[in-house]
Amino acid sequence: MGFAGRDVLSILDFSREDLEELFSVADYMEKAVKEKRKLKLLEGYIVALAFLEPSTRTMYSFQSATHRLGGYALVFSSREATSLAKGENYADTIRMLDSYSDLIVIRSRYEGAAKYVADIAENPVINGGDGKHEHPTQTMIDLYTMKRLFGDIDGLTIGVLGDLKYARTIASLLYGLTRYKPKKVYLISPSILRIREEVRDTITRLGLPIEEVSSLRDIIGELDVLYVTRIQKERYPDPMEYERVKHAFKITPEVLKDARPELKILHPLPKIDEIDLRVDNLPYAAYFYQARLGVPLRMALLALVLGVWR
Amino acid sequence: MGFAGRDVLSILDFSREDLEELFSVADYMEKAVKEKRKLKLLEGYIVALAFLEPSTRTMYSFQSATHRLGGYALVFSSREATSLAKGENYADTIRMLDSYSDLIVIRSRYEGAAKYVADIAENPVINGGDGKHEHPTQTMIDLYTMKRLFGDIDGLTIGVLGDLKYARTIASLLYGLTRYKPKKVYLISPSILRIREEVRDTITRLGLPIEEVSSLRDIIGELDVLYVTRIQKERYPDPMEYERVKHAFKITPEVLKDARPELKILHPLPKIDEIDLRVDNLPYAAYFYQARLGVPLRMALLALVLGVWR
Amino acid sequence: MGFAGRDVLSILDFSREDLEELFSVADYMEKAVKEKRKLKLLEGYIVALAFLEPSTRTMYSFQSATHRLGGYALVFSSREATSLAKGENYADTIRMLDSYSDLIVIRSRYEGAAKYVADIAENPVINGGDGKHEHPTQTMIDLYTMKRLFGDIDGLTIGVLGDLKYARTIASLLYGLTRYKPKKVYLISPSILRIREEVRDTITRLGLPIEEVSSLRDIIGELDVLYVTRIQKERYPDPMEYERVKHAFKITPEVLKDARPELKILHPLPKIDEIDLRVDNLPYAAYFYQARLGVPLRMALLALVLGVWR
Repeated sequence: MGFAGRDVLSILDFSREDLEELFSVADYMEKAVKEKRKLKLLEGYIVALAFLEPSTRTMYSFQSATHRLGGYALVFSSREATSLAKGENYADTIRMLDSYSDLIVIRSRYEGAAKYVADIAENPVINGGDGKHEHPTQTMIDLYTMKRLFGDIDGLTIGVLGDLKYARTIASLLYGLTRYKPKKVYLISPSILRIREEVRDTITRLGLPIEEVSSLRDIIGELDVLYVTRIQKERYPDPMEYERVKHAFKITPEVLKDARPELKILHPLPKIDEIDLRVDNLPYAAYFYQARLGVPLRMALLALVLGVWR
Repeated sequence: MGFAGRDVLSILDFSREDLEELFSVADYMEKAVKEKRKLKLLEGYIVALAFLEPSTRTMYSFQSATHRLGGYALVFSSREATSLAKGENYADTIRMLDSYSDLIVIRSRYEGAAKYVADIAENPVINGGDGKHEHPTQTMIDLYTMKRLFGDIDGLTIGVLGDLKYARTIASLLYGLTRYKPKKVYLISPSILRIREEVRDTITRLGLPIEEVSSLRDIIGELDVLYVTRIQKERYPDPMEYERVKHAFKITPEVLKDARPELKILHPLPKIDEIDLRVDNLPYAAYFYQARLGVPLRMALLALVLGVWR
Repeated sequence: MGFAGRDVLSILDFSREDLEELFSVADYMEKAVKEKRKLKLLEGYIVALAFLEPSTRTMYSFQSATHRLGGYALVFSSREATSLAKGENYADTIRMLDSYSDLIVIRSRYEGAAKYVADIAENPVINGGDGKHEHPTQTMIDLYTMKRLFGDIDGLTIGVLGDLKYARTIASLLYGLTRYKPKKVYLISPSILRIREEVRDTITRLGLPIEEVSSLRDIIGELDVLYVTRIQKERYPDPMEYERVKHAFKITPEVLKDARPELKILHPLPKIDEIDLRVDNLPYAAYFYQARLGVPLRMALLALVLGVWR
């Protein structure tokens, strides 16, 4: 379909061909930044960053991507939203941002917020994470990182570990993987944090070869990629149970002793203590590399959606 | 007189010729943005936005205008002001902003704040709203919108409705209308919110054909323009009286049934419930269009005041 | 050594030749800004301003300097830091900023914070003030101001007055003066705020001709430069003693009656009441001039460190 003028609400809206095009533009962007080439594709353009849920990492990454292309970011955070509110209806606020910019990136704690904004705004809207629903640009980064690390996503054995129920990055990632042909996708989680039924139904229907397991130990030796997310305390009514689970799912050098040498660990960040700090220095750790790729990937996405990439 | 290097403190400082020049530059700016032309008039320039009273809409509009011209906005909000304060006298703070930028836009809850800043700063100062005093750039947008909608302001019948006593947008608008020859200006308000005597004296002296009425019903059929402002609860000691007044002055499809088909409703925004949401979809509603014109109008003003428009 | 790619942690890392090169680039920058020349040296570059200790003045000055060169500032203040924290370790936060920008300016209330950041970041790091330790870019401005005012720093008689114990600007200034040959440096302070032993040892070893005195009166007639800093109330357990000292060290027109006509008063700003407001209008007052030089000096530093100045 091409990207120009499109909303980016769900990763499911994009085909494999779309993603491959995006990744090849991201390759170009990364190289251009490294060589300090002055990109002016977004000169005169304004990207509104409506981050109604506080998020530093995604926001700065989009801000950096916008600036690297010569464009300007108009930051509208939860603080401004509060002061603006004073009773104004959200539709009016969105119309305001829409008329002051060329594209809106929206982050919200509510599922469906991005769709709501896209229905009102005339300009394209990018979903920067809406509640537990989706986080499509994170998935684009995740898939791009796998591609850069292994050359191809087809054929990989991927473990996805942690809070599979509420983490929006997980739902989006699994949807995104349906565009490829991984050999196997292990879903590793404590029983109360297994993926939601609607997600399992969708990815099964789309033919993703998943298997749910409750322990990393048995399958660690098979993995090319281990994708880790945080298990949040508030999910557990019983703090003792939380401590037990947290311990059982923590990634340590010991846990990794049976890993294949090629294993790469990804994480959407920020991480707290779900990955032992000693792992940061092992060759398995690819999450800082993954984070770095966020800027060129988002540069590519902005340039494509705004139709300035020829 | 021309705009270059001038302070913009009151709309009364500007002649009809000034305003017409401004509007013709705004026409150019709007077209240039629509065509995605890269304007670089403010490349290397810095506009300090000193918004000591929280205001999202005016601030973002100036920020967007600055960026569209290739310039940079240095945002200094009430939060920074608080942290800076620590006992520093305001004159020093203003000198700081003045030496870091090329122009200061000042918004404050105090009447005369813009004049105070202009007396200290070497660079030009634009009043972004000072207490109940004035809001000249909003008036420029209001007049520009009328001009765009009707071709001319001369000969229009204009109704101004709501809190005519405390709304600075109203004082400025009435002053601005004295530069034109509207057929009639109806001032429609509850009795305790009639315009202040000094405003009435000034506009009468300048020959503006006003008439004060207490109900919209009798004159709605005559109006080309209906300019609405919010009636704030805190103006009414008696909450029952407030509810009664609010209801009587609310703009609904029913109220508009006797309106001329050409009627256009303006509002400085944000609006809360003084205009029924169903009105948003009627052809009368011109306030979103008016808001969109804020960016090209302020682009024109910045370019003229900074002397980069040839 | 040259500046390109270097961290700027302490003024002691820089030789006289380094400083002279910096000042000559600052001369160029000031002229270019004055003539409204469009500098594009930092086009496409991003400067991360990590201001974990609130500071308006230094932050805006760096922001302005970045923008004047065509670059973009990514502002990461204590508010973002708080929301980000959520348990993320600081090293990860620094890696994030490092991967989103080309250079980090760090301000913190902790001594050694800049060094800590520099050890983690791949890109250059500039110390924007760390606790009571150092504030090297302020010293660069201070020395540059003296040079501009007197042509040379060698041979000057300089008085440094106020809180010599805790003010980081003082420690850095004295270190910086060791790169020159002032005739004499008087250290003027109440007894409990004399310079710390490690600072005295360093500057004595480096041959700075200092003399500690407890009153300005006797030596005011000798001074070319009087550098004033604030005496903070919290340093004094006894409020009465604080009032007495504050009064004794306040700069008033009366205190200055024996000053040489050439005397120039400097102050890192913000000032509260340690300088009588009437002094602002005397020819002695050079602190507003000094503040204005902050932007071109920091422009020069950014351009040199980022290696874009040929």
